[in-house]
Amino acid sequence: MLYVIAKSVSKKENIEETKEAMLALIEPTRVEKGCVQYDLHQDQEHPENFFFIEQWDTKEDLDKHLKNKHLVKWAEQQKVLLASPMEVFMMDRLA
Amino acid sequence: MLYVIAKSVSKKENIEETKEAMLALIEPTRVEKGCVQYDLHQDQEHPENFFFIEQWDTKEDLDKHLKNKHLVKWAEQQKVLLASPMEVFMMDRLA
Repeated sequence: MLYVIAKSVSKKENIEETKEAMLALIEPTRVEKGCVQYDLHQDQEHPENFFFIEQWDTKEDLDKHLKNKHLVKWAEQQKVLLASPMEVFMMDRLA
Repeated sequence: MLYVIAKSVSKKENIEETKEAMLALIEPTRVEKGCVQYDLHQDQEHPENFFFIEQWDTKEDLDKHLKNKHLVKWAEQQKVLLASPMEVFMMDRLA
């Protein structure tokens, strides 16, 4: 199992648009092969901070996900909406 | 429900010690009131990066947790083991 945290920091003037763009990723992603968890969170104190908490059966499943059209679209949207590039942490679960 | 990501960056020379110190938090924490999830992860690419992914029934439960002796001890250990202060993100789950 692969555990992922993806942190996106929206430009402050784009918070709602960023939220909508990220919410739109959820339905098509959750039906993808190997997607075990794909949940979106928003920082209470700094609402420009968004976090996907994800679990994928394999790295290959995740790689395929990143090539899907809704992710390719999001990659373009990021350039306009985010204040800095999305940070993706690929993790092992220790306990 | 309160969702939390806590990111700790170990000094590179203390990675194993940091890992042991964080692993020791798990058992006493998971039996605390309101603790729904308390999982420790390590970044595959940058092993100095550790992430707790947590869920708590209420903010009060989390606040009590932070005052427990194993957390007070960890607060002291952080000063020695970590390269920078632990970042804690309190989040709402959007979907």
